Amino acid sequence: MTDLQDMGKRAVSAKYKLQTMTADEKNHTLLTAANQLITHTEEILKANEQDIAAAEANGMHPGLIDRLRLTPERIEAMAEGLKQIAALPDPIGEIMEQFERPNGLQIEKRRVPMGVIGIIYESRPNVTADAFGLCFKAGNAVILKGGSDALQSNMAITGVLRSSLEEMGVPEDALQLIMDTDRSITAAFMKLNEYVDLLIPRGGAGLIRSVVENSTIPVIETGTGNCHIYVDKDADLTMAVNIIINAKTQRIGVCNACESLVIHEDIRESFLPVLAKALKAHKVEMRGDEKVREFIPGCHTALEEDYGKEYLDYIISMKTVGCVEEAIAHINQYNTGHSESIITENKEAAEKFLKSVDAACVYVNASTRFTDGFEFGFGAEIGISTQKLHARGPMGLRELTSYKYMITGNGQIRG
Amino acid sequence: MTDLQDMGKRAVSAKYKLQTMTADEKNHTLLTAANQLITHTEEILKANEQDIAAAEANGMHPGLIDRLRLTPERIEAMAEGLKQIAALPDPIGEIMEQFERPNGLQIEKRRVPMGVIGIIYESRPNVTADAFGLCFKAGNAVILKGGSDALQSNMAITGVLRSSLEEMGVPEDALQLIMDTDRSITAAFMKLNEYVDLLIPRGGAGLIRSVVENSTIPVIETGTGNCHIYVDKDADLTMAVNIIINAKTQRIGVCNACESLVIHEDIRESFLPVLAKALKAHKVEMRGDEKVREFIPGCHTALEEDYGKEYLDYIISMKTVGCVEEAIAHINQYNTGHSESIITENKEAAEKFLKSVDAACVYVNASTRFTDGFEFGFGAEIGISTQKLHARGPMGLRELTSYKYMITGNGQIRG
Repeated sequence: MTDLQDMGKRAVSAKYKLQTMTADEKNHTLLTAANQLITHTEEILKANEQDIAAAEANGMHPGLIDRLRLTPERIEAMAEGLKQIAALPDPIGEIMEQFERPNGLQIEKRRVPMGVIGIIYESRPNVTADAFGLCFKAGNAVILKGGSDALQSNMAITGVLRSSLEEMGVPEDALQLIMDTDRSITAAFMKLNEYVDLLIPRGGAGLIRSVVENSTIPVIETGTGNCHIYVDKDADLTMAVNIIINAKTQRIGVCNACESLVIHEDIRESFLPVLAKALKAHKVEMRGDEKVREFIPGCHTALEEDYGKEYLDYIISMKTVGCVEEAIAHINQYNTGHSESIITENKEAAEKFLKSVDAACVYVNASTRFTDGFEFGFGAEIGISTQKLHARGPMGLRELTSYKYMITGNGQIRG
Repeated sequence: MTDLQDMGKRAVSAKYKLQTMTADEKNHTLLTAANQLITHTEEILKANEQDIAAAEANGMHPGLIDRLRLTPERIEAMAEGLKQIAALPDPIGEIMEQFERPNGLQIEKRRVPMGVIGIIYESRPNVTADAFGLCFKAGNAVILKGGSDALQSNMAITGVLRSSLEEMGVPEDALQLIMDTDRSITAAFMKLNEYVDLLIPRGGAGLIRSVVENSTIPVIETGTGNCHIYVDKDADLTMAVNIIINAKTQRIGVCNACESLVIHEDIRESFLPVLAKALKAHKVEMRGDEKVREFIPGCHTALEEDYGKEYLDYIISMKTVGCVEEAIAHINQYNTGHSESIITENKEAAEKFLKSVDAACVYVNASTRFTDGFEFGFGAEIGISTQKLHARGPMGLRELTSYKYMITGNGQIRG
């Protein structure tokens, strides 16, 4: 049985060293780790074969097996990911604010590592290197709990990464993997708040809900996206069709894909037949309210539950409204705080939408698919936060940091 | 039985209105509320008398009764607090960042309200007006759960505040009080994450632990402070005594009071007798390790558990170390992430301490008592965060906000 207390203590001990490492030291370590992954490709593939064989024997869904499978190219991509992280600016040490108080105290607010980060994820071995790289660059020790089906792969990858740490004189406990596959260990991990400062679940809605409900460690909720596009009466309709097709079909299984359309009723006649044709051409099933169905023959009926659903599939729900305020109210009722877009040439409607829609990312005349750390220029992404505490929207390196106040005086006491 | 679901829905409905209010509208509302508190002084005092009578009948500790008791002066102070909050700058709407992507997308990161904030606190009726004022100014709806012993007082205060909101055309559900005193209601409140974005416990260690362990809403942990002062071998010893006496005795029951001393062994002979004399004069009981006790006759023995204890009393623990690194390690082992200070004239030691001690506020040559929103110039304080997620150290208005990305395009789709 894994001794989580011991792992926690080791992580804390490693974090003190990481907090004092320079950007150069961290970058060299990441590059070494990247090279070692390539060097040990065969060993990692062998471990992965064991996972694949077991998964096939257990009848795992082919889509999941694909996510589990490693190839030389995928290992190269993992290494490339670490190199890209090494090339990013180091967020640590940044002076975020600086001020002097009337009593002469000099106060600096400085960016520091979060400390120890826990990541719980599904059977995707590439996340192992990626999560390590991001946490490490931001000066954090990390404890990983990956899906059991990827255990051999994860052990091989973390083995290589830990050797690289040791080779560079960095405490290898900067990266630890929980190797126990018993479910009770995950439950206990979520209560390790004495040592772990932040827990990030990466995976489907079920995993995230379980972590939010059971963790006593502060959590960042990521991922669920019931994203809307509202087509206003003053929309450029060609642009609207392009954006909807992109947001719905460019990649269907992702959290920033569009799941639901809200349409101003004044443009039903001019817009819906064109839209329907384009969606049909992309094999998207439509589910609309009565006013939608009047103009789209064969459109299915949207039930109440459709509006709250993240399909992650070739299905889209459609709802008509009489004004932008009604669109905003509908979106605020059903969205998951991820990404929402308005298509309009009307500045007033756009501003109202930007101000009043409650979501991490609110767009005017653009696809919701841009909610992404790379697309935002962060150079990396650990996830998309759908909560409001700490980080909202795409999370890059900075979002894996905290701050502290450094105060310098010359004998000040409080009166 | 309180219908928490209904309260949650009302709070969400109110938050949409609050998010669009201007600073002027919010300030006028706060000033109106302040005046109404004064106008209704008698009514509030009558309600408070009921609480006091019940508390006395139940044999409540006189110290707690004092915290529970309202007077015309205390109600005036509550009103004054609201006026001060009205005078603070409005954090909402601030453009925190602004950048353009190569594809032409314009991205703005804007400060927005958190949404709905829950506050769980003990039987201190002054917190009711204070917590409302801070949350409201930052554009948030708030649901309060105060200590049962203060229920009549809290009902009277929230009644006055809600009438003020209505008078100013603001949804009165911007402020709601849970009036049920059943313990199960508090447990259910902590699971209301569908509606509540942030939960802040204000009170003793037991209350905070219970919230951290049971809440599924994101929590900010506040308050516990096992604060250290390290007296380095290169310290100005007169300054050290002044700072220690201030940090230990100026107010003993607060989280930024000093609970433990770490002392470089080279200065034992010159420093300890002087320190001991000053501490004795302030009736502070000393508990030290063997090397301390050699130089302080009558000093009690510090047990292992003393080093981890927040006394909130006229007691201090003392530990000797051989170097600054050992001091840092000791503090990092026992502190609660609150406030730690080094007294030294040695720049190198000071820098090492600032960088390596893991706490919200790290001081050089100043009293730990300065960890406070007012002392930091924030103009207000909802608490001192001892966690690393979202906010660390003193929390003012800005720490009660979130942000969102507003992205403007002209038809961009993802390739």
